[in-house]
Amino acid sequence: MRSPPSHRNGETPPSPHPRIPASPHFQSTVTVQKLKRFNSLILVFRFATFIFSLSSSVFMATNSRDSDSPRWYDFDAFRYVFAAGAIVALYSLFEMVASVWEITRGITLLPEIVQLWFDFGHDQVFAYLLISAESAGTVLAKTLKGTNTCTAWGGFCVQSDISLALGFAGFLFLGLSSLMTGFRVVCFMINGSRFHL
Amino acid sequence: MRSPPSHRNGETPPSPHPRIPASPHFQSTVTVQKLKRFNSLILVFRFATFIFSLSSSVFMATNSRDSDSPRWYDFDAFRYVFAAGAIVALYSLFEMVASVWEITRGITLLPEIVQLWFDFGHDQVFAYLLISAESAGTVLAKTLKGTNTCTAWGGFCVQSDISLALGFAGFLFLGLSSLMTGFRVVCFMINGSRFHL
Repeated sequence: MRSPPSHRNGETPPSPHPRIPASPHFQSTVTVQKLKRFNSLILVFRFATFIFSLSSSVFMATNSRDSDSPRWYDFDAFRYVFAAGAIVALYSLFEMVASVWEITRGITLLPEIVQLWFDFGHDQVFAYLLISAESAGTVLAKTLKGTNTCTAWGGFCVQSDISLALGFAGFLFLGLSSLMTGFRVVCFMINGSRFHL
Repeated sequence: MRSPPSHRNGETPPSPHPRIPASPHFQSTVTVQKLKRFNSLILVFRFATFIFSLSSSVFMATNSRDSDSPRWYDFDAFRYVFAAGAIVALYSLFEMVASVWEITRGITLLPEIVQLWFDFGHDQVFAYLLISAESAGTVLAKTLKGTNTCTAWGGFCVQSDISLALGFAGFLFLGLSSLMTGFRVVCFMINGSRFHL
């Protein structure tokens, strides 16, 4: 992990104005520290999104173990929940790699402006995708509760509900990530650098 | 409509440095003009959101005219679509008043920081609410298509579909408003004024 050079009082070379050359380094270190804290918080949200959306997909995909039980992929809305969860999990995995890369190396994985817009745009779109899928799945789960399906195969309906709850939790963390990456984009637009937090 | 004072070349009082006092007024006028254009664009999006979400609610609420046809309020998801559309329409109406107030008087309806956070927070939450409601309604409409309801009362299902399509259009414009109000919040956080666009 590299960090910009810092100067202690005793180590600065003698000069008629010793405070002037030290000042930009000091500001830069503080800014880099703030950016690292900010990126670490995004990484935590990414990790939570990944865990919840992956669990949601896995719970949905493993919901038809008995040969005579209803199959989750026969229901459009459950396929939508599975697909949205899987897409968001894959995206979160990529974003975690990008985030760790940025924290350890101090540069973004893609060119800076591309990375910022990529993050924010995808966060917004995938947050809408996930809430849309979970809402659709919830209505289907509720409709099924009034039919014979849930009377005969109660476990199928319970596991669908768990998958949906996990998906909603994933949406919560993705929404928080979206707020933070939106903030980064505007900082860049205004100041020309993501370092001005 | 008030505008800040402007000085033509011939009207400025004689001074040894005539450009210096005129400069702040010129910058202020440019900034106010930019802010007005920005606010006018938000107003257009608000108006579109209002029209689409209100139409969505009205189409849903007028969907049970015959005494023997299915009643929309017997279906949870359709009640959700109606409620979400009505809430977003009311909110957009309030925001249109606030926007016209700001464009004509140059000040926000609520205290500036409260107004900016109020707008952005509600835009985000209501955009998620609306996409969630429309997705839920879509699954129900799709489920109904496989039942006797749509065979016997085709008009009921067509009108539900129209209501849902209008709701999705409302969501699109609300999402655009949300992006713009988010931009205003960050401008305020960074510069301490919504005038720095």
